[in-house]
Amino acid sequence: MTRSELIQQIRTKKTFLCVGLDPDMSKIPRHIMEDEEDSIYEFNKLIIEATAPYCVSFKPNTAFYEAYGLSGMQSLEKTIKYINRNYPEHFIIADAKRGDIGNTSSMYATAYFKRLDTDAITVAPYMGSDSVKPFLQFENKWAVILGLTSNEGASDFQQLKVNGRELYLHVIETCAGWGNVNNTMFVIGATKAQMLAEVRKIVPEHFLLVPGVGAQGGSLEEVCKYGINKDIGLLVNSSRGIIYASGGTDFAEKAAAEAKKIADQMKQFI
Amino acid sequence: MTRSELIQQIRTKKTFLCVGLDPDMSKIPRHIMEDEEDSIYEFNKLIIEATAPYCVSFKPNTAFYEAYGLSGMQSLEKTIKYINRNYPEHFIIADAKRGDIGNTSSMYATAYFKRLDTDAITVAPYMGSDSVKPFLQFENKWAVILGLTSNEGASDFQQLKVNGRELYLHVIETCAGWGNVNNTMFVIGATKAQMLAEVRKIVPEHFLLVPGVGAQGGSLEEVCKYGINKDIGLLVNSSRGIIYASGGTDFAEKAAAEAKKIADQMKQFI
Repeated sequence: MTRSELIQQIRTKKTFLCVGLDPDMSKIPRHIMEDEEDSIYEFNKLIIEATAPYCVSFKPNTAFYEAYGLSGMQSLEKTIKYINRNYPEHFIIADAKRGDIGNTSSMYATAYFKRLDTDAITVAPYMGSDSVKPFLQFENKWAVILGLTSNEGASDFQQLKVNGRELYLHVIETCAGWGNVNNTMFVIGATKAQMLAEVRKIVPEHFLLVPGVGAQGGSLEEVCKYGINKDIGLLVNSSRGIIYASGGTDFAEKAAAEAKKIADQMKQFI
Repeated sequence: MTRSELIQQIRTKKTFLCVGLDPDMSKIPRHIMEDEEDSIYEFNKLIIEATAPYCVSFKPNTAFYEAYGLSGMQSLEKTIKYINRNYPEHFIIADAKRGDIGNTSSMYATAYFKRLDTDAITVAPYMGSDSVKPFLQFENKWAVILGLTSNEGASDFQQLKVNGRELYLHVIETCAGWGNVNNTMFVIGATKAQMLAEVRKIVPEHFLLVPGVGAQGGSLEEVCKYGINKDIGLLVNSSRGIIYASGGTDFAEKAAAEAKKIADQMKQFI
């Protein structure tokens, strides 16, 4: 998907919500687990169908599929195919946090962009240029590079001072030079919303993927206050807060309500 | 596998070679590609059988399996089962470079330690403590954390100065405090062998996984000079230099010869 298509979607639907598809079998409603052969896929389908009107993006986290082995990986494949077929206007991010030496990153890029056909993949920057650049070689595909993450451990290394400035700012500045606003985004956790102001000084035009609203405690208002730009430039993700809003037979309905609630809050910023 | 079992293996076999299993269909010999239904698995089996006497560890890189979709992941599962069944004394490292927020890293740990049953997994440290610690919760399982990698891009961030000392040394020191010598190793590229001396000042007893000997140009002598400790404390990996030593019908024989050559060089250091 191109940048202008993504912006168009956001303006038309008046939402920049991304729904995280992190299927945990211990949390999927019992009736789905009991009735369906591929319960992860069935759960995802119903979540996607229910929340699609309120979001512009879906983000399956690969860990939650790998944990269930081959059948989990099959559920991931089927889920991505389902979105591409039925909701082709939705931006699909494989939240895989990959990154390796050049020839190996190329294999990951092939796996996600060619075989699975996602629009984007999250990339870990620690190994540097040749680990990131292979993800930037595909037309209309995106690398979403970890900048400042939403978790507690983010302070361990990302916020260390390098020449008087925090490492994550250095990472963002350097990585931004490897690609452009049409193929690179950055992950900035909503739990550190005020730091978005610093990030915007370096990458005023890039899209930012912002996890951490919802279960992790981040505030949408703060994120928008410091992070929004003239093209909106944000994809705000919520996973658990939406998909596990209810553990009962009304889970899809409750997920839709939760997604709608966030989308309604987003309207004022668009 | 425990640390003492690993050391015992190294002393008994007089080798600390790790063979990287990175199957690239464009390089697997034609007769295997044409004759075998699961050519990756057949290729791996023959490589494993040929090189097992000269190494103590196998390291499949997950990218090379993910790139071939479900059938690739099935080949990975079968390969690991094959090693565990036929060569249980070999230490299996899933070279996956995973790392995510706590609940997600736990899913990856489950995928690799419980489901696939590898001894170790490589872990990317950028996201900090809660992204690494879930890999340290399994008895006799190991996190192999990226310290200083063998690729060109390693200098982009890993060698930035933090309080006058390079970031990778800070990463190693901090991560070493989260686990212990029985569940934590570090990746240090052979292409930067002299830096092993600095690493050894911080982690004198830890095992180090050293890629980059062979195709990437690192020197075994240099690695041993600066990196060896009283328990040897090294696993030196070669992938392409061994498994693609020949592209013909003699590929397994040539792989064995290449592995034997390295193992013979290792003897003097044990």
